Amino acid sequence: MDRVKESDTVILFDPEKGKKYFLNLSLTKGEFNTEKGKLELSTLVGLPYGSTVKTHKGFEYVLLPCSLYEFIMYKLNRLTQIVYPKDAAFILLRLDVKPGDLVVESGIGSGALTAVFAQAVGPNGKVVSYEKREEFIKNALSNLRKLGLDGRVEVKHRDAGEGFDEKDADAVFLDLREPWLYIDKAYQALKTGRFLGILVPTANQVIETLKKLKELPFMDVEVCEILLRKYKTVPERFRPEDRMPAHTAYLIFARKLPEGVKVEW
Amino acid sequence: MDRVKESDTVILFDPEKGKKYFLNLSLTKGEFNTEKGKLELSTLVGLPYGSTVKTHKGFEYVLLPCSLYEFIMYKLNRLTQIVYPKDAAFILLRLDVKPGDLVVESGIGSGALTAVFAQAVGPNGKVVSYEKREEFIKNALSNLRKLGLDGRVEVKHRDAGEGFDEKDADAVFLDLREPWLYIDKAYQALKTGRFLGILVPTANQVIETLKKLKELPFMDVEVCEILLRKYKTVPERFRPEDRMPAHTAYLIFARKLPEGVKVEW
Amino acid sequence: MDRVKESDTVILFDPEKGKKYFLNLSLTKGEFNTEKGKLELSTLVGLPYGSTVKTHKGFEYVLLPCSLYEFIMYKLNRLTQIVYPKDAAFILLRLDVKPGDLVVESGIGSGALTAVFAQAVGPNGKVVSYEKREEFIKNALSNLRKLGLDGRVEVKHRDAGEGFDEKDADAVFLDLREPWLYIDKAYQALKTGRFLGILVPTANQVIETLKKLKELPFMDVEVCEILLRKYKTVPERFRPEDRMPAHTAYLIFARKLPEGVKVEW
Amino acid sequence: MDRVKESDTVILFDPEKGKKYFLNLSLTKGEFNTEKGKLELSTLVGLPYGSTVKTHKGFEYVLLPCSLYEFIMYKLNRLTQIVYPKDAAFILLRLDVKPGDLVVESGIGSGALTAVFAQAVGPNGKVVSYEKREEFIKNALSNLRKLGLDGRVEVKHRDAGEGFDEKDADAVFLDLREPWLYIDKAYQALKTGRFLGILVPTANQVIETLKKLKELPFMDVEVCEILLRKYKTVPERFRPEDRMPAHTAYLIFARKLPEGVKVEW
Repeated sequence: MDRVKESDTVILFDPEKGKKYFLNLSLTKGEFNTEKGKLELSTLVGLPYGSTVKTHKGFEYVLLPCSLYEFIMYKLNRLTQIVYPKDAAFILLRLDVKPGDLVVESGIGSGALTAVFAQAVGPNGKVVSYEKREEFIKNALSNLRKLGLDGRVEVKHRDAGEGFDEKDADAVFLDLREPWLYIDKAYQALKTGRFLGILVPTANQVIETLKKLKELPFMDVEVCEILLRKYKTVPERFRPEDRMPAHTAYLIFARKLPEGVKVEW
Repeated sequence: MDRVKESDTVILFDPEKGKKYFLNLSLTKGEFNTEKGKLELSTLVGLPYGSTVKTHKGFEYVLLPCSLYEFIMYKLNRLTQIVYPKDAAFILLRLDVKPGDLVVESGIGSGALTAVFAQAVGPNGKVVSYEKREEFIKNALSNLRKLGLDGRVEVKHRDAGEGFDEKDADAVFLDLREPWLYIDKAYQALKTGRFLGILVPTANQVIETLKKLKELPFMDVEVCEILLRKYKTVPERFRPEDRMPAHTAYLIFARKLPEGVKVEW
Repeated sequence: MDRVKESDTVILFDPEKGKKYFLNLSLTKGEFNTEKGKLELSTLVGLPYGSTVKTHKGFEYVLLPCSLYEFIMYKLNRLTQIVYPKDAAFILLRLDVKPGDLVVESGIGSGALTAVFAQAVGPNGKVVSYEKREEFIKNALSNLRKLGLDGRVEVKHRDAGEGFDEKDADAVFLDLREPWLYIDKAYQALKTGRFLGILVPTANQVIETLKKLKELPFMDVEVCEILLRKYKTVPERFRPEDRMPAHTAYLIFARKLPEGVKVEW
Repeated sequence: MDRVKESDTVILFDPEKGKKYFLNLSLTKGEFNTEKGKLELSTLVGLPYGSTVKTHKGFEYVLLPCSLYEFIMYKLNRLTQIVYPKDAAFILLRLDVKPGDLVVESGIGSGALTAVFAQAVGPNGKVVSYEKREEFIKNALSNLRKLGLDGRVEVKHRDAGEGFDEKDADAVFLDLREPWLYIDKAYQALKTGRFLGILVPTANQVIETLKKLKELPFMDVEVCEILLRKYKTVPERFRPEDRMPAHTAYLIFARKLPEGVKVEW
């Protein structure tokens, strides 16, 4: 049984309206107030998730934990295009990120992928994020704080083009406009045998990236897209949703070989 | 720098041929032997990954760690349809599985998804898998052992229809022919506010599952498919692969509400 | 060189604004009037398509023919879900509809597919459409008239469940909520060896339809979906559109065998 | 009721085996001979399609017309990648090809798209195909002959880069390795207001083509892909096929504006 902690982002769910209210307890002080009455937020701390709580008017809300998936989709403050969960999930598995790993990325964007990495590496792992724009850093850290994941993320306020300090990363990820300018540095930061991941929205960028990857000792190079197709949930009329995202990004993966080893692909 | 352990599955990569040899060091005793010469396997233990090793004839192989992704795709012994990485990755994120979590599943299949769960929960987490067919258990455990993940998995040799022992699972997953017969039990095993995941290959099964989910206190019900489209990696002729998997399975997700709470969806 | 006829729907294209005005010359009498000035519509009749015409203020428009595709997408008056061109085009080829053919359909919907059939069968072919709702007939005929295709379409104002008058159709198409109730009648109307097409939006309807098709002498039964993915047209940033239609309908095709011939599928 | 003509390609369908035999009556002289007995082919001429015919041993076959779709998919002799029906069907509608139209294309490939055009323009229309490779012409004409469509196709044995003779085409289609070298000529051949279609397999080719289209008076430029997803036809286990074609080609469409008219897109 998990209990609410003071730093948690929680959900108050109104079953009548089918509506969720997301509240970060350390940021939202005082009362939760709707037309159904008031609720003192400090009284939530220590309650078991799944509890039913009442407003002063007697209306009931269900207290739920906020999942990383729904935070990213619905509550993450976005200053940039984000890495969507469908892509982030596949990246995580393809880069073989595990509890305890060191992940190096650039840039931080709005922190969506950073959060996915940070949750996956666990309390003994670490994410180092290189980002040159200060407003992105501030915003991403604010998002990570609401998820309780900021403690696992170290942000370096500079361009990764100057090189990464890390030389032993379990995974490196590039989400930059011109990733081909950073692949040499990413190679240096990565453990041999482990994976570099790159995300770009356009085919032109994939083409440039592939050209650069061909010059360096990489193997198992793969380019792919992940498509998520949702369905309506009415059992009597089961069918796909009418519309879907057609494209978020192309994903590129490559595995580091030792220097001097050349392979054809 | 990671060093080879005695229980590891390693890759010997022949850069000339572009060929990978997967070897589990505790199972494959003695020599690795190809037309390029012999290599004593015990000499690999303790070497850093990324090392170059030589056969007695002087040919070189690169010593690489085996990723979970490639093990599942290329080396996992399959007695059943497996849950493919594209699906397993999304399931992991949608069920919000984290280091330290308790995940309950049924059945074990060939252990592909089990391995993904086990890697994600880390050394402090646990996966409990219910499976009634002994040959599946044997095979899945053998696969998990080669990944060094068997220590995190407890297998219960019985039908989950009798109920799960666990009452506080962070996530429950059903991969069964008739999951609707097991949803009541899954509900009992799950923490309130957390997610049930279900995988089925046919639309008929989705329809039956949705009917059953409607009878119980679940919210945030979602049905989806994940499609993975790969591209050829020639920069001068960038284009999708000619063929792709068109379907592996429909994924269904639902979040547990407290008993007695009813929502429309 | 094609010249404008009095019954045509034409496009006046404003190159400055990149805007198209669709005008049916027999319905829109008098002047075309924008802030760029007036244009007497009757003066357009007899002009070659591709001409540049001027308003009284001297602004230029390009006179273009209206294609069936763009009429359906942008100008067809819709009282119902329409059969989209991506689907209509494939239906046409799968049903092997040719100039001179007799096509029988039910219902008429808003006339989009009817128009595609009517254009394809040419002046020597014919489309017979069964429809019980009068408002649909009126609307569809109005759409067909603007395309100059109403002369090839005969509408029968009744439910196809009573049977089709035709016994020698080159193709039969059903776009109805419960097509399985009409398949016996469609079988009677169709030439042996030719194709029945059916469109339904839900998986449940496909399942019922397949059950019915199994009872009758049909072969070459196929169920499919057509997905259209558009790309942005900026050469420096070539990439798919952000969103796309995820689903319009499932298409079902079956070929009539002689009575008494049974095949497994 | 359609009767078999001497030039037809017909299908003899064996219902027991579920097997189709495709026979071109003018090419295949003499007897049709299987383990089920012999059948004099000349006796088929004049029979109504849908008839049941018997071998000398008394086994029955059903006589069926061969559809253009199945001829292209299963019987067309291929010397090149073909334009698949899913793409050909959409091209036809997007180019607004109608009975009576003049369609100009280059190259002829194996004649699949040529056949679709030829069927659609009907006996009063015409397809002119430019092709420099003689073996392609021979093969394509042989395919068209088996479909009875060769009479509507004029082949010009030369490179379209020298220009098209036609100046009034209702549609122009390019299926060439470097279509950007031919777009100027295609523009000259096309009626103003009508459509140019281009098919290329790679993103690099799309990018080059878009650059060229930007230099000329074209509007309504669109790039897309058509995906066909088939389903298994078992009503009790309705689900997509396991695999599907992931890519055949990118389709590009553009509409001719008069010379000197410039639009942004």
